[in-house]
Amino acid sequence: MSENQFDVVVVGAGLSGLSAARRLQKRNPQLSVLVLEARDRVGGRTVSKDLLAANGVDQWDMGGQWVSSSQTHVMELIRELGLEVFPQYTEGKKVHHVGGPHAKIKTYTSSMPSYSPLALLDFTQVLWRIDHLTQTISVEDPMSSPNAELHDSMTLHTFMEKYVWTTQVKEELALCSRIVFGLEASQVSFLYFLMYSAAAGGTLRLLETTPGSGQEFRVKGGTQQLSEKLVEQIGKERVRLGSAVMTICQNSENIKVTTSAGTVTCKAVIVACPSHLAAQIRYEPALPAERQRLTQCLPIGHMTKFIVTYPTAFWKQRGFSGEIVARPSENCPLSVTFDATSPRGSPALVGFITGVQARDWCDRKMEERRDAVISSLVKYLGPEASTYIHYEEKDWAKEEWSGGCPVNVMTPGMLTYYHPSLRKPFGSDYTRQHFRFIGPAQRRLPNGVDTLMEPFRPVRGRLWRSWLRCVLLLCPRRNWTQCELL
Amino acid sequence: MSENQFDVVVVGAGLSGLSAARRLQKRNPQLSVLVLEARDRVGGRTVSKDLLAANGVDQWDMGGQWVSSSQTHVMELIRELGLEVFPQYTEGKKVHHVGGPHAKIKTYTSSMPSYSPLALLDFTQVLWRIDHLTQTISVEDPMSSPNAELHDSMTLHTFMEKYVWTTQVKEELALCSRIVFGLEASQVSFLYFLMYSAAAGGTLRLLETTPGSGQEFRVKGGTQQLSEKLVEQIGKERVRLGSAVMTICQNSENIKVTTSAGTVTCKAVIVACPSHLAAQIRYEPALPAERQRLTQCLPIGHMTKFIVTYPTAFWKQRGFSGEIVARPSENCPLSVTFDATSPRGSPALVGFITGVQARDWCDRKMEERRDAVISSLVKYLGPEASTYIHYEEKDWAKEEWSGGCPVNVMTPGMLTYYHPSLRKPFGSDYTRQHFRFIGPAQRRLPNGVDTLMEPFRPVRGRLWRSWLRCVLLLCPRRNWTQCELL
Repeated sequence: MSENQFDVVVVGAGLSGLSAARRLQKRNPQLSVLVLEARDRVGGRTVSKDLLAANGVDQWDMGGQWVSSSQTHVMELIRELGLEVFPQYTEGKKVHHVGGPHAKIKTYTSSMPSYSPLALLDFTQVLWRIDHLTQTISVEDPMSSPNAELHDSMTLHTFMEKYVWTTQVKEELALCSRIVFGLEASQVSFLYFLMYSAAAGGTLRLLETTPGSGQEFRVKGGTQQLSEKLVEQIGKERVRLGSAVMTICQNSENIKVTTSAGTVTCKAVIVACPSHLAAQIRYEPALPAERQRLTQCLPIGHMTKFIVTYPTAFWKQRGFSGEIVARPSENCPLSVTFDATSPRGSPALVGFITGVQARDWCDRKMEERRDAVISSLVKYLGPEASTYIHYEEKDWAKEEWSGGCPVNVMTPGMLTYYHPSLRKPFGSDYTRQHFRFIGPAQRRLPNGVDTLMEPFRPVRGRLWRSWLRCVLLLCPRRNWTQCELL
Repeated sequence: MSENQFDVVVVGAGLSGLSAARRLQKRNPQLSVLVLEARDRVGGRTVSKDLLAANGVDQWDMGGQWVSSSQTHVMELIRELGLEVFPQYTEGKKVHHVGGPHAKIKTYTSSMPSYSPLALLDFTQVLWRIDHLTQTISVEDPMSSPNAELHDSMTLHTFMEKYVWTTQVKEELALCSRIVFGLEASQVSFLYFLMYSAAAGGTLRLLETTPGSGQEFRVKGGTQQLSEKLVEQIGKERVRLGSAVMTICQNSENIKVTTSAGTVTCKAVIVACPSHLAAQIRYEPALPAERQRLTQCLPIGHMTKFIVTYPTAFWKQRGFSGEIVARPSENCPLSVTFDATSPRGSPALVGFITGVQARDWCDRKMEERRDAVISSLVKYLGPEASTYIHYEEKDWAKEEWSGGCPVNVMTPGMLTYYHPSLRKPFGSDYTRQHFRFIGPAQRRLPNGVDTLMEPFRPVRGRLWRSWLRCVLLLCPRRNWTQCELL
């Protein structure tokens, strides 16, 4: 084959794209695979960076950083690639400052903040209600869950209005939406929220640092290594950087993929970039209307991540774990922080400005955000917070080839009306011949076309199989759900 | 100036873009303006077509076709361009087939279908409730309306679940969403629905054919003439067809606009294409995060329009007006029809397959849809419906440079969090110097930038001023609200 002719082209050298390429090569070493990446690096929303720290220079993840023992696929990959994980530091008091503008700063060491009796009752009943609903959700086929259509016709905010009694718990849930999705509760389909929780094994798992939860482990040396090591396995010559895909034209013969750096032809394409970016590629023939509408309503979250390095882990000395959950206000941009001390022992904190706060703060000067973050840390953890070594931040919304983080989210109606198109391959007979049709879980579509791919599988831990969902168009939104790396 | 250098470039030769260009030229004849259009024709979502008919060949609008006396700007333009309107035919019985799978086909001649006493009571209370809320809406600044945030955090469907008692009226409202937006009630922000109704002067106006309502008049010779005559005024050499805009790069000197047919430079750009298409253009520097998120959540409706020509207007002979409102079912794809007899007297019916039905039917063969439409017409209007001359249809979702119709709609949270970015110009000092800052109605944004433009003005009839809303980025979604052409 010529140097610009391949069997399969993968769009996007993030975790999804690279593991798709590797999997294809493993299955069939004869297959020629090329991965195209718009940026000048691999890793997508994982990127590791050297920062000034107590031990000179040390490394932190500016993107996805956490993995969990319940995410078996990514844990398997980490082992396979010879990488190591280490637990998130959780000892000591957690700071909790939620519950209206006059809320007091509280600390706690158990798994639950100290609520007033009414708020505790409210929190318990809401969590019971959500978990009860979560248990009825089919993550394989969410629309087969009881009351699926009703739950998809309302927002998470509507659920809160209906079932949450206290301002305190309303604020908790609103924060939960910002921290988990980077979007407000009024933007998210309630069914999508339930499905997301179900995929994680429960709502609390999305937020906690306990075993099996989303913030359980970090990867020594950073998560970008996962992608870098995948590239080594695939072959460096199989990954082309600086190649933003602009058009994908299929005809009966082959598929022509035009990038900012040239054109390649192939027999199948796996689009493994976030759905809102997949929507910016021009397709000939055009994608089905259903699919187009789907990607028109999968907004991506907005989060700014910051790392602050310190000469000493003063919070540990003061008996704090470093975990803060705060109601963002005019002077306090942050929603949540954790200890981020490096495996080599360089003390640091990590935190996030999320959702509408990320929007409100993103156009200010870095110095303003930094000073506001530092003064919030002083307020919650003590005056030593002001003597930091380095403040580093990353607003993923400003990365052209990410546009935001951590995930693309479904607005109401998307699961009901357009969701099956997410994993439905489009065009190319080659796809039909070479990709296994796995399960009948997907509902038959009106036009009678069955999916060729594995049933939708956002179950935690199954990340590394999920790329198979869709051959022409694979969007890694779901992967992140499972991966829960950030 | 060279042939590829202009003061202002307008992206999109639809009604918005062309009237923007004309207005600029009128204000300042020295200004060099260029309109870029991706298609090989002007008119955007208005297009007129010759069809076989009783009088040989006659012309029908396959896109937007209605205007109203309450839409004063478009009416003024029609007069100015020397065009004429004629009233929508409304005499006779209307057919109404709504209210669950076992509903009976009913006819009525008043303005309201004959409901059961309970449904009537329900309909009255819901309409009263909506109209009451509509009257509190500020169309200039929707977020200043009472309970704006609450109403924007829920879908139209959530409102229905809460306040509508009967299946009959629920179905009516669901149909209303499909007919007006081409989307389901679960996809639309309730506040957006209220604002849309308020802009039209009330919910019923969106649906009716009475004076002042959305379906009051048609334009003799078709609505595409509006655009064609605008081109004559602007100058044919000022409009370049077949020029799909791919990138807009601003630097301190000028703006470079790259199209599929070459590159032009200018000092300001007005993007006057639907918002989901504006989102597909690559901007350098990137648009603000707020603006990007906005266009990620403005899905466009899905409608297939059909025209059926007949040797005689048999429905008139049978005492029908031609208006049918039907609950779409497996065998009946249509939601609504009207008489479409031409000014020259060629009998015809016009109708729409909308929302989820448009999705379900769009991948079938044209013949299947045609046969299903015809057999529905037979069921509602009589056996003569089967002896048609010609069936013509247009699925706007399949037009690459439309992607759907009639409008882009806001999902929950968009008005609350991102809406101001719709009319906020971006970059280019030229804009600041040359475009008038009109009103203080827009809220000040966190970064302190004021709008240079007129306050958001979706009020009916004000279409032809609204393009001023945003200079770098004008999306005509709102125009359609006011124009109500389809």
